[in-house]
Amino acid sequence: MNKVALITGSTSGIGLGIAKHFAKKGYHIMCHGLEANGPEIAEDIKKNYNVNVGFSNANLINANEVEQLVENTIKTLGRIDVLVNNAGIQYVAPIDEFPNSKYEAIIAINMNASFYASKAAWKYMKKQSFGRIINISSVHGLRASEYKTAYVTAKHGVIGMTKVLGLEGAPYNITCNAICPGYVRTPLVEKQIPDQAKSHNMSEEEVITNVMLKKQAVKSFVPIESLADMALLLAKETSSTITGSEFVLDGGWTAQ
Amino acid sequence: MNKVALITGSTSGIGLGIAKHFAKKGYHIMCHGLEANGPEIAEDIKKNYNVNVGFSNANLINANEVEQLVENTIKTLGRIDVLVNNAGIQYVAPIDEFPNSKYEAIIAINMNASFYASKAAWKYMKKQSFGRIINISSVHGLRASEYKTAYVTAKHGVIGMTKVLGLEGAPYNITCNAICPGYVRTPLVEKQIPDQAKSHNMSEEEVITNVMLKKQAVKSFVPIESLADMALLLAKETSSTITGSEFVLDGGWTAQ
Amino acid sequence: MNKVALITGSTSGIGLGIAKHFAKKGYHIMCHGLEANGPEIAEDIKKNYNVNVGFSNANLINANEVEQLVENTIKTLGRIDVLVNNAGIQYVAPIDEFPNSKYEAIIAINMNASFYASKAAWKYMKKQSFGRIINISSVHGLRASEYKTAYVTAKHGVIGMTKVLGLEGAPYNITCNAICPGYVRTPLVEKQIPDQAKSHNMSEEEVITNVMLKKQAVKSFVPIESLADMALLLAKETSSTITGSEFVLDGGWTAQ
Amino acid sequence: MNKVALITGSTSGIGLGIAKHFAKKGYHIMCHGLEANGPEIAEDIKKNYNVNVGFSNANLINANEVEQLVENTIKTLGRIDVLVNNAGIQYVAPIDEFPNSKYEAIIAINMNASFYASKAAWKYMKKQSFGRIINISSVHGLRASEYKTAYVTAKHGVIGMTKVLGLEGAPYNITCNAICPGYVRTPLVEKQIPDQAKSHNMSEEEVITNVMLKKQAVKSFVPIESLADMALLLAKETSSTITGSEFVLDGGWTAQ
Repeated sequence: MNKVALITGSTSGIGLGIAKHFAKKGYHIMCHGLEANGPEIAEDIKKNYNVNVGFSNANLINANEVEQLVENTIKTLGRIDVLVNNAGIQYVAPIDEFPNSKYEAIIAINMNASFYASKAAWKYMKKQSFGRIINISSVHGLRASEYKTAYVTAKHGVIGMTKVLGLEGAPYNITCNAICPGYVRTPLVEKQIPDQAKSHNMSEEEVITNVMLKKQAVKSFVPIESLADMALLLAKETSSTITGSEFVLDGGWTAQ
Repeated sequence: MNKVALITGSTSGIGLGIAKHFAKKGYHIMCHGLEANGPEIAEDIKKNYNVNVGFSNANLINANEVEQLVENTIKTLGRIDVLVNNAGIQYVAPIDEFPNSKYEAIIAINMNASFYASKAAWKYMKKQSFGRIINISSVHGLRASEYKTAYVTAKHGVIGMTKVLGLEGAPYNITCNAICPGYVRTPLVEKQIPDQAKSHNMSEEEVITNVMLKKQAVKSFVPIESLADMALLLAKETSSTITGSEFVLDGGWTAQ
Repeated sequence: MNKVALITGSTSGIGLGIAKHFAKKGYHIMCHGLEANGPEIAEDIKKNYNVNVGFSNANLINANEVEQLVENTIKTLGRIDVLVNNAGIQYVAPIDEFPNSKYEAIIAINMNASFYASKAAWKYMKKQSFGRIINISSVHGLRASEYKTAYVTAKHGVIGMTKVLGLEGAPYNITCNAICPGYVRTPLVEKQIPDQAKSHNMSEEEVITNVMLKKQAVKSFVPIESLADMALLLAKETSSTITGSEFVLDGGWTAQ
Repeated sequence: MNKVALITGSTSGIGLGIAKHFAKKGYHIMCHGLEANGPEIAEDIKKNYNVNVGFSNANLINANEVEQLVENTIKTLGRIDVLVNNAGIQYVAPIDEFPNSKYEAIIAINMNASFYASKAAWKYMKKQSFGRIINISSVHGLRASEYKTAYVTAKHGVIGMTKVLGLEGAPYNITCNAICPGYVRTPLVEKQIPDQAKSHNMSEEEVITNVMLKKQAVKSFVPIESLADMALLLAKETSSTITGSEFVLDGGWTAQ
């Protein structure tokens, strides 16, 4: 029987990449995201990989929409084996100019939604004695950058949550781990390159190497394929003793 | 001129202990807490240490009450040099039985209040080119225990926040650090000892050593005096290069 | 063209398990170990997986034997793509009774040998613009246990070495990472179970759960298969941005 | 009765600074170092602070000279209460050009000497039920820089050693902690500033800010006074529950 994976924020970027790699391995996929063409993206995955696919555009800022997302996964695909908490937003400002509303939205979506989703999925995972919760944290779950108070706080919070759920899941074969990527070349990042090149008066190559990847020793973006490799490894049946840890894929960022 | 320290949650336990040690060193103190006799506690500090003392019973669950607490400090004591984010609550339950409202209250008080307070204090600290923000986190800012999803998440989040504020404060001589205590003998803990002795059918000594301090190598509570020593060191004028770090006082808990 | 992996300490336990998984994926294997029947073990791998296999019983306590081991790999198998520094010894004693000679042997084999081997392999990896160094550290590279001064020191040292080599390898597509397993069921551990059961007057099941796996939340040994999964992921061509990090597979040991 | 502190490498730089601060607080001091005028330096401390002072120029590369250094402390000053393992050397080279002899010397002096000294002091500390071992590690005990394989390995190793000794010392009121400074303005560093200014074609100010303190958010050297504050705090009688931890004073280096 094919397993079911709910991946939040999977209509673009990292989430979409992970969804495709899981679909390729035969997982049925619950897609989620706010892209207008979300349903078509989900439909494409279904066709290309010949697996069952559901779709939801739940607004993760609301606890009850997160809970509904998990219930919809059960309704649509019959079960939930893997939960990838991936959806996230960003806002950058010095602490004294950081709007409360932005701080609150980032904490809600990047951190609290992982709590509500994991809690909602827990009872199903417990019953079936199998669950793999994978939180997409960040190097910012372990290190700070200026002007990112909310993001760094939320991502560190998720690392803590990961450890607790790792401990609590042990008797039920539910594992919980975090993946902490460095800089990934998502469409969002892609679009920023020419703009930053102009504003810094640099070539695109220089922007990538000296601005974006400044803190990485390896001057290449982390490919989504590596994140997917890692997530698929964590999701394996035999990975039941891998839990409560963070897996850092960051080109040497945190090593220095 | 004496410096002013605002210490949240300072009408009992760790906060009160820190307040007294700061008062003893000549700091004027902004007391805060929900104890009914808060004003008398503040009055006692004033008399015993001959410093100026203010008092507030702001409810830290609300952003605007946190902000008002900082404004009141300025109004009452004229400035704010040291901010000790100490107030915290706890709730313990398995993830699938953890009430959303309890999770949200813990995140609000143990984590978000530190954001609102630090942000509100920042403009004053920036203007005076001096600030010392000290977050009382916990070993649970670095490690997990079962059934404490909200607490561990919040305390990890605070560690992340500490790092960002450490970086952002660098140009302004504002430092931000976290203290991570193990088990401290607060009145709250004190009261639990005889109850736990009964329920575990153990002597009080055994409860302390084998239950409460199970994860510490040193089988003694961390004294509030050590926390105060650490906080006073961090608050020094000459400690301007100590920032963005966590200071662990835990009897060897996290070492193993 | 098949890649070549040198795996130290690969005639038993974790190393042998990793060697077999790499051979299964088509890697040619340089086997190494002090088992008397080492050559037969190597021969078995050759036959079972139809890859080229070399064998050495170099004594890793000597720098020049470590260097010779790398040179032999080149001579026998033509190149070196993956180096798994796995060989290790253990000794347990309180600090004041810990023999200097035992301390020195553990530092030499568990830590210094990784330096000599990595240095010797570096020039080949640099020339071919590809290298994957995988250090088998331990949870004891991140946490301590009593009476294991030498082992914990060496394993922490290896984590530091891993970070430096991760940084230095970045321009040459050489990555260096550490795998930190919890308790793995090796033949050595296997043999201890009945003995410990007797001496603790416990069932074998109880020895495993309450003694050996006391610090793990998941009460199962970490399977060698998981270590091999992780090592194979790190060795991939596409894993070039994964470097300088530690990958913890420990049943929740370090999470708490 | 005054306590006795043995501080290795205390005839210059950090060690000398710590020695003076301890002497000022009334500690008798065992000075150690290879400076030609070591005996005069020791004599100065004796006169200026009116405490007993011994001196040794033991070569810490030899285990038995380290052991003799501890024995001499007992002979000269009657006891040993505080051991500050501070002596260290540095060498910088890419891994493939790093001389084995340099690697071995750094491991011996920066790491192994801490083992031999702690082991030799242990029996005295155990007997008197009091001991404070303070290892001067570095941010390089937690993070790497290129070309410093030996130093980073040794400093990480010391962090591991610190944790084990923290655990083992718990029943005997022996604590062991590490201090991890960022960039400290020692005479050695002082001398490099004009040279680097020339070679980088920068002002001395720019060399400090952009080269030396590049990784610190706070663009000032960590003052030796802060290290001494921290060491004195750790050495206190009441600090018996502070153990097995690292105390980072680094201007925000490791936070990012």
